[in-house]
Amino acid sequence: MRAVQTREQPQAVLPRRHILDLNDFTREEIETVFRTTDGMKEILTRQIKKVPTLRGKTVLTLFYEASTRTRVSFEQAGKILGADVINLTTSTSSVVKGESLVDTGRTLQAVRADVIVIRHASAGAPYLLAQHLQCSVVNAGDGAHAHPTQALLDLYTIREKLGRIEGLKVAIVGDILYSRVARSNLWGLSTMGARVVLCGPPPLLPAGFPPPADAVVAGGPALPPVTVETDVDRALDGADVVMALRIQHERMKGGLLPSMTEYARRYQVTEERMARAKPGALVLHPGPMNEGVEISPDVAHGTQSVIQEQVTNGVAVRMALLYLLCAREA
Amino acid sequence: MRAVQTREQPQAVLPRRHILDLNDFTREEIETVFRTTDGMKEILTRQIKKVPTLRGKTVLTLFYEASTRTRVSFEQAGKILGADVINLTTSTSSVVKGESLVDTGRTLQAVRADVIVIRHASAGAPYLLAQHLQCSVVNAGDGAHAHPTQALLDLYTIREKLGRIEGLKVAIVGDILYSRVARSNLWGLSTMGARVVLCGPPPLLPAGFPPPADAVVAGGPALPPVTVETDVDRALDGADVVMALRIQHERMKGGLLPSMTEYARRYQVTEERMARAKPGALVLHPGPMNEGVEISPDVAHGTQSVIQEQVTNGVAVRMALLYLLCAREA
Amino acid sequence: MRAVQTREQPQAVLPRRHILDLNDFTREEIETVFRTTDGMKEILTRQIKKVPTLRGKTVLTLFYEASTRTRVSFEQAGKILGADVINLTTSTSSVVKGESLVDTGRTLQAVRADVIVIRHASAGAPYLLAQHLQCSVVNAGDGAHAHPTQALLDLYTIREKLGRIEGLKVAIVGDILYSRVARSNLWGLSTMGARVVLCGPPPLLPAGFPPPADAVVAGGPALPPVTVETDVDRALDGADVVMALRIQHERMKGGLLPSMTEYARRYQVTEERMARAKPGALVLHPGPMNEGVEISPDVAHGTQSVIQEQVTNGVAVRMALLYLLCAREA
Repeated sequence: MRAVQTREQPQAVLPRRHILDLNDFTREEIETVFRTTDGMKEILTRQIKKVPTLRGKTVLTLFYEASTRTRVSFEQAGKILGADVINLTTSTSSVVKGESLVDTGRTLQAVRADVIVIRHASAGAPYLLAQHLQCSVVNAGDGAHAHPTQALLDLYTIREKLGRIEGLKVAIVGDILYSRVARSNLWGLSTMGARVVLCGPPPLLPAGFPPPADAVVAGGPALPPVTVETDVDRALDGADVVMALRIQHERMKGGLLPSMTEYARRYQVTEERMARAKPGALVLHPGPMNEGVEISPDVAHGTQSVIQEQVTNGVAVRMALLYLLCAREA
Repeated sequence: MRAVQTREQPQAVLPRRHILDLNDFTREEIETVFRTTDGMKEILTRQIKKVPTLRGKTVLTLFYEASTRTRVSFEQAGKILGADVINLTTSTSSVVKGESLVDTGRTLQAVRADVIVIRHASAGAPYLLAQHLQCSVVNAGDGAHAHPTQALLDLYTIREKLGRIEGLKVAIVGDILYSRVARSNLWGLSTMGARVVLCGPPPLLPAGFPPPADAVVAGGPALPPVTVETDVDRALDGADVVMALRIQHERMKGGLLPSMTEYARRYQVTEERMARAKPGALVLHPGPMNEGVEISPDVAHGTQSVIQEQVTNGVAVRMALLYLLCAREA
Repeated sequence: MRAVQTREQPQAVLPRRHILDLNDFTREEIETVFRTTDGMKEILTRQIKKVPTLRGKTVLTLFYEASTRTRVSFEQAGKILGADVINLTTSTSSVVKGESLVDTGRTLQAVRADVIVIRHASAGAPYLLAQHLQCSVVNAGDGAHAHPTQALLDLYTIREKLGRIEGLKVAIVGDILYSRVARSNLWGLSTMGARVVLCGPPPLLPAGFPPPADAVVAGGPALPPVTVETDVDRALDGADVVMALRIQHERMKGGLLPSMTEYARRYQVTEERMARAKPGALVLHPGPMNEGVEISPDVAHGTQSVIQEQVTNGVAVRMALLYLLCAREA
């Protein structure tokens, strides 16, 4: 495999075969991802945004849940690096015949997939795959458990815009209980030295803050210390970064929220509330947004929003991860 | 970007970022598309039909409606030119999460798509996207409004087979009211100097001939002068080109047509009726065909039919358009 | 087209345009596929598993039925050889508009597909396509009729592991009546000189052993002589190869089987039953498996199982077939 030429780290290595969550990533590993992403971002800005780095490698996306940005982001990342990308989604696959996840994974490994990128509604599904396969497994979101590549792109965006993560106050606002994005960010942000405040209405906050039962994966450590807050004004007070999470309509049906209007009135990230954050504080959102619910349109598209940059950085981060995983074998 | 070598037009340029409809295409622009298509068609005939012209470019197809030929045609066009092509269809995307069209478009732009090819059930959807994006937008069919790449391939096929478009009589027969193909062809054919006759049963003809309300897109001019005819024999009389349109089964349900049989009896393009057209008149159909309804099998597969050539020319025309749009930035 | 360098057969040729079934394959043709597959398998083991052999060729997969392994296997095969691969599945195509199969095929040919790989629920569908098209058609499974590329990969795996096929006893156990895998294997194995025993409960065995009516394709010869057996112990006695077939849940509904448990008790391929086969006998399964029904987990993942090798060989065999079909025109 031809190496990507980046001045900073000619010999970037990640001492792991899989990307499952950030709970066991060291600060050094995250910084290796950052540096590799810097080089990838430069490639993305080229007139001809294509390199032969992963020529002859196969990236297989295995999505059991709907997705626009994550699947497309991985596909774009793989193709820009010259890999072959094969997509497999539930509705068009043998999954309908009831084959077990592990057998599906073994089959994909046997067709010589180098990396399997999996999204699944069940927490822990990527771990199950990783236990049984020799090829690399990347978790692209498993139930309410983890979404490590989203967290890495959030971390990268913060570091890119503010120059550092250490010592920052990051407020994450919304449906914390069911958010794999919040959970993976909590790990990554804590490891990088940020102070995290989780904020939402009590039914959407983890009770007593252990993670819910379905998010406990065998061998995983407990979540790091974190402040939990039900008052959004206090959560945003002096924040360097505000991350709004999507409110799922399903939460209404489940009786956890009285109405979208009531949620918006009490927790929407608005210009007025952003005034409590630090001047120049960043606004992030993992998308897709419900504008007018968890975030006001003026904030979503305002000068503090880095939501589009997050998407572009997502491609660069995933290029970096695919490169680092494939470089292991080279 | 490496230029495609074509003797005729070393410096082809299209002064537009988007392909939304043909209503504002000049004759010169259409001729630029024709000349560029000539070069692309030659590539299609090669043993190795692949060039690196759009290497490093990303063509993203965003289809909210079912399609065989149009999506495959764009995918083939992009791949032959060396672009990376990423497909996104409704059922497997975040669209199910209710993200707005514009937000989806912004996300796809942020993953560095160079061209978004969109098909949508709502007239005007591609315009909305184009208003908010910097990357190129190509309309691959929006509701009953427009289908400009289909019209361009029809125009190209006529010009290729008959040597000119100016002065020809073109009869378009079928469900005119709901046909985006008819509407875009009317613009293109009129601009190129053809005389267009629209023919169909009264309930499928536009009343008084303004386009129906849902086809009016902000800023668009009125349709050009055209002859409307309910008698198919008169419509075909002396025609140089006969274009049969697909009759949707849904029209029966809507009560606009008594039955397929009745439609076929009165409007089917048959050998007998084709005898009224000029000798050597062409038969076109945008596909997919209901053979035995709007067109008889002997005409569909007869010597005057250029229906297969239309499909091949569709790939060449879309190669030309992708090339011309991407060449703008190079 | 650049030739794949294989010492053994610099000039491999297959005197056919389509791969529809193995009933008319000669021993020489099958051996040509084997030798070409040897070369392809070497490519699959490379660090950079990519060659430009089919650059500029278009492989189009047209799947009217769900599939993981077969579609992915063809896609991987095409991409490794440098072809462009375009996927078309029922739910996202014009098929929903009711276009005829032949018209769909003509359209795909007109976009310049070089090979159409079709899976269809109706026996004979690939034959219909082949009758009307000039491009190559590969049958990736048609109803209960044939699945020639699966049979070729089974044959290749047996020959690779045991050194020969001639004279071997091969027991195929399960839902013989509805199995396209069994039917194509019967042809291929017989041609290569193996002795085949078909085994299953009486309702899943062909009565009097003509194939069922829907599997009779015009012009096809009768099936070769074969032993039919309802006792699995007798079937496995002294076998060199045991192939377990998937039991479809639908068979229960149809009243052909009392229960999965009853089937498993009487026909499951277990360690105990495998003791009757020759020492070192191979266990094959076309996948996806119902572990614990037609095959016990210890056998499925045991030392005699070559199920994962089958999957890898499937990619190599399909590379060989795509290469041989495209080489015809070069």
